[in-house]
Amino acid sequence: MTETGEVDLRHHGDAEVGDGLADFAVNVRAGMPPEWLAERIRAAVGDLAAYPDPRPARKAVARRHGRSVGEVLLTAGAAEAFVLLARVLAPRRAAVVHPQFTEPEAALRAAGHEVERVILGKDFTLDPAAVPDDADLVVVGNPTNPTSVLHPAGAVAALARPGRTVVVDEAFMDCVPGEPETLATRLPTGIAVIRSLTKTWGLAGLRAGYVLADSHLVERLAEAQPLWAVSTPALVAVEACSAPEAVAEAEAWAVQLAAERDRLAAELSARGLYVVPEARASFLCLCVPDGLGIRALLRQRGYAVRRGDTFPGLGSDWLRIAVRDRPSNDRLLEVLGELGI
Amino acid sequence: MTETGEVDLRHHGDAEVGDGLADFAVNVRAGMPPEWLAERIRAAVGDLAAYPDPRPARKAVARRHGRSVGEVLLTAGAAEAFVLLARVLAPRRAAVVHPQFTEPEAALRAAGHEVERVILGKDFTLDPAAVPDDADLVVVGNPTNPTSVLHPAGAVAALARPGRTVVVDEAFMDCVPGEPETLATRLPTGIAVIRSLTKTWGLAGLRAGYVLADSHLVERLAEAQPLWAVSTPALVAVEACSAPEAVAEAEAWAVQLAAERDRLAAELSARGLYVVPEARASFLCLCVPDGLGIRALLRQRGYAVRRGDTFPGLGSDWLRIAVRDRPSNDRLLEVLGELGI
Repeated sequence: MTETGEVDLRHHGDAEVGDGLADFAVNVRAGMPPEWLAERIRAAVGDLAAYPDPRPARKAVARRHGRSVGEVLLTAGAAEAFVLLARVLAPRRAAVVHPQFTEPEAALRAAGHEVERVILGKDFTLDPAAVPDDADLVVVGNPTNPTSVLHPAGAVAALARPGRTVVVDEAFMDCVPGEPETLATRLPTGIAVIRSLTKTWGLAGLRAGYVLADSHLVERLAEAQPLWAVSTPALVAVEACSAPEAVAEAEAWAVQLAAERDRLAAELSARGLYVVPEARASFLCLCVPDGLGIRALLRQRGYAVRRGDTFPGLGSDWLRIAVRDRPSNDRLLEVLGELGI
Repeated sequence: MTETGEVDLRHHGDAEVGDGLADFAVNVRAGMPPEWLAERIRAAVGDLAAYPDPRPARKAVARRHGRSVGEVLLTAGAAEAFVLLARVLAPRRAAVVHPQFTEPEAALRAAGHEVERVILGKDFTLDPAAVPDDADLVVVGNPTNPTSVLHPAGAVAALARPGRTVVVDEAFMDCVPGEPETLATRLPTGIAVIRSLTKTWGLAGLRAGYVLADSHLVERLAEAQPLWAVSTPALVAVEACSAPEAVAEAEAWAVQLAAERDRLAAELSARGLYVVPEARASFLCLCVPDGLGIRALLRQRGYAVRRGDTFPGLGSDWLRIAVRDRPSNDRLLEVLGELGI
């Protein structure tokens, strides 16, 4: 069995915030959910006596990505999707492309599977040749948490082959205007796409996500899923956020985000830091000597950033920083300046 | 492998309602959640951007039953608890005491386990001798859905023995004033108790429940559970409903329920129907010739009652009827009268 290494796969950004720290650690869009969405969710409280009915939300997701209803499984967040996939698939050789969100690997290990880590090299671009030929399960993030790298759809799709399931974690895909590299709308054979509402809509507490996959796999996942797995408020949110107006609203945000992210990246690069290039998600991945020490000093000054050393393939020099609005980002830059950065 | 029989274990009361039918099919208390609780849940929408923090709710549940925090696992409804238990336990011989809620058996089968059915005899009282001696997993409901029978705590506890896990589904225990037969507050070795907020508080759509078990089993279940499995609104509800005032409010309702249930049972018995005696939950279980036919006629007249034939051990002559308030129950009695009952 591949060593899990010394990193804590169960460490997440939410453990880094609190105590009044300014939050640059958690990849959830600030100021969310918007009032129109909060109002829809509050209204759902009037329907809580009834068991959840996933049909309208499932239909809305199918329509949003141009899929059939049978290709959609609603889940209690992307985290549940990873657990269901880990339980239902029985991989002989599972490969997880790192650095990436650690829950897929943790879920595979918890289900008793061995996991092989494929650690990407320079700039964390996807190298399909690095994935073992006989891996029958491959997990990859796109765009990738924590590197913010967006892989070309063609490169991800090229991982598919007979007898292999490729799981693409697209939890941050709606950060990318137009989503040119999504596989949700194409869904090549053997590819399962995982999406989340958590980040863009500020619904981490609601547990709302979904899997898009061929209907046979969806059926198998549904069989392993607890009955009524997704709550009524989460279903209401999934349906609302899949509507064309909501998708357009997210798209407008993604355009603004891109501009501010690129500005922040340029500022940090100008200070001599290595920022993983071509960032496309709502965060930046940095390499700075003694990143953990910098992180500690930032905490003393009231700023929480995400440690990078719990991601396989990164180390103690790495940090992940959520992109906030311009004034917030400028305050972080100022504090970094006080630390000599 | 034991035959699953021809019944649909995945049929539940929620599939029987709708189309404007008066709901005597779903075992959820009417008029719920109360406004004070709905308000608390609505207020939680303001905290949805953060990942769920289960600690306060877990502590409140521990306090409510006089347990330690390590003996509590919060789950996305009792349904998730059944799935987690089915996955984590690896029974050589699993026995499910029927008639009972069908999800535990369905979850065990979905996890690949064989299930042996122990069908209770006369009046559905628990006969520990009917359970195979070498069963290392026994599942029993108390009070039992759909029979409404409350087993003595001692009889349930007597099922425990070294090497065996006894799972007690107490989803309806808070229908019983004072809960004299609960094992939640005693938790004998080898017993896991499952509780739900769904029925009494009208929160079927929220997915909120929990398991009480020894801390070692709780740890194993937690390892198999998706990260952040219980949503923030559900956690808020669990915490609120575990407070002493809420428990007292539920207790007052249970006292009223008992009186109305017993009246309804007496009325039905007086008409010559067999009502399972000693009902203690929020529903009655009846045997009436051609129950399915009666059910169809009731539906034509706008009344939904739960078919009994999908419960192993019952048949097409059986019906389950939720106890509603007196005027609603009287209307049902009237319609039954029109059908010659």
